[in-house]
This record gives sequence, C-alpha cells and structure tokens, in this order.
Amino acid sequence: MKETKHRSACAIAFGLDIVGDKWSLIIVRDIALRGKVSYGDFLKSEEKIATNILASRLVSLETNGIISKKNDSSDKRKEYYSLTKKGIDLLPVLLEMLIWGAKYFSKNESPKWFVNQAKKDKKILIRQIKSGVKSGKYLLKRD
Amino acid sequence: MKETKHRSACAIAFGLDIVGDKWSLIIVRDIALRGKVSYGDFLKSEEKIATNILASRLVSLETNGIISKKNDSSDKRKEYYSLTKKGIDLLPVLLEMLIWGAKYFSKNESPKWFVNQAKKDKKILIRQIKSGVKSGKYLLKRD
Repeated sequence: MKETKHRSACAIAFGLDIVGDKWSLIIVRDIALRGKVSYGDFLKSEEKIATNILASRLVSLETNGIISKKNDSSDKRKEYYSLTKKGIDLLPVLLEMLIWGAKYFSKNESPKWFVNQAKKDKKILIRQIKSGVKSGKYLLKRD
Repeated sequence: MKETKHRSACAIAFGLDIVGDKWSLIIVRDIALRGKVSYGDFLKSEEKIATNILASRLVSLETNGIISKKNDSSDKRKEYYSLTKKGIDLLPVLLEMLIWGAKYFSKNESPKWFVNQAKKDKKILIRQIKSGVKSGKYLLKRD
C-alpha cells in the first residue's frame, strides 16, 4: 500500500486524509490507553471493528508511519503493534475529541478523572500516558 | 435522518461516530476560518468534495447539531450554514489536527503565523476565530 495521497496543501486536510475515519483513532486509543498490542486485542474492543476494516486500517496506519509492527521473537506468527512518535503526537487530537465527546454525549462513560485531567492540563496527561506506555501501566487498561 | 447511533460509551468513539470522516472537519474549517456559508461555497474548496457527499455530510452535521441552516429572507431558495456552539466546540480538535498536520506534512501550506498561534495559545486563537465569525473578518478568508 502506498502512502495516502493528499487532497490539498492544508494541514487539517492532511490529518483527515490519514486518520479521518471512524477507526484509526480508536486503534490509537487502544494502544496508548488500554495496552492493546495485537490484531486479536483490537478485534475485542467494544466498538466491534470488522476484521477486514481492521486489517486495512492497520496497513494504512503502518504505511503512514503512525504505528509500527514487530514480530514476536519466540513466535514469528505473532505480531505486535506500537505507536511511533508520529502516532503518539496524535494524542492531543484524541484528547480534544474526548473532551468534546464527554461534553456532548449523554451516555458517556469515559472516566471522569481522565476527562478532567485532559481539560486541566493536556501536557501532563500526555506525559502520564507516555510513561504508562513505557512501563506497561496503561491509564485506562481494563483487564 | 436520525441522529448518529453510537458504538460504545467512549467519548472518543462518540466524537468519531459524528465527525470521524474525511469531510466533516473540512466543512467546520470552511465555516469557521474561511467564511464559507453556502452549499456552493463548500463545493468550491480545493479538496473538491463530491456533491452527493457534501449533501449527506451537511444533513448529518445538521442532524447532530454541529451546524444550523437558515434560509435567506429575500430568497427562500438560498440556504446559509453556520456553526452551533457544539460546532464551535470542535475547534480545539481542528487546531490539534492542524498542528499535527503542519508537523508531518512536507507540502503543508497552512499559514505559519496561524499554526504558531495554535501551538502557542489555542484559547486566544479560538477567541480570535470566534470574533472573526461574528464580525465577518474570517482569519483565513481567501477571496
């Protein structure tokens, strides 16, 4: 797959060309906040992504340098995904989407402390998210 | 058209359910920054949205309370779109997308002063955008 083509020289349109869809930022969320790493992990998310869409999103995110894929050294069939620097740099977009959603979604169940921290100081929260990713203590891990 | 259904109780997924596509935030950009108000205006943008997609996006944005439509009092066939409060509240998402795009898009031509102001102080810039919308002095108007 080739890198995504761009519709214009607008930086906003560029971002949307790459992650302007219903799933890309869900995958970024799953990796950064919930500690998901594999194809099977992403499939289990409550949004219920279809396998063919997941496969195509992962290829696109990898091609565009948002995620990178590694093979398990002990089992070559297993593949693990992580965010690149370019992917981690999407966290501010993700957090603004969270703040907007938390404000307007009556059925929102995203943790209040997390939403409040995003509103209060995004930089600190992003630092916490990054250190969670490094240490394996993901801020919104569920299991 | 009914309001968009939601895949989960996650605030991020909620946002993506509504504006997670290639065009919704382009329309928000056009209204907030470029002073576009009509169907014909949106069609002229350099990203070249197809008429059927534009029509469907406008209905969805209106149904979800992001934009509102008014008829021209002198010519009832003319319709003007504006952002609601809920739509204006998407500006932080838009600006973070701009910052990300400006960082990674080698062919980015979004004005440097605008990107720098978004990085430096989003709140001030959003205040400037809002007052631009009110006074008709749109920050990135082109004609």
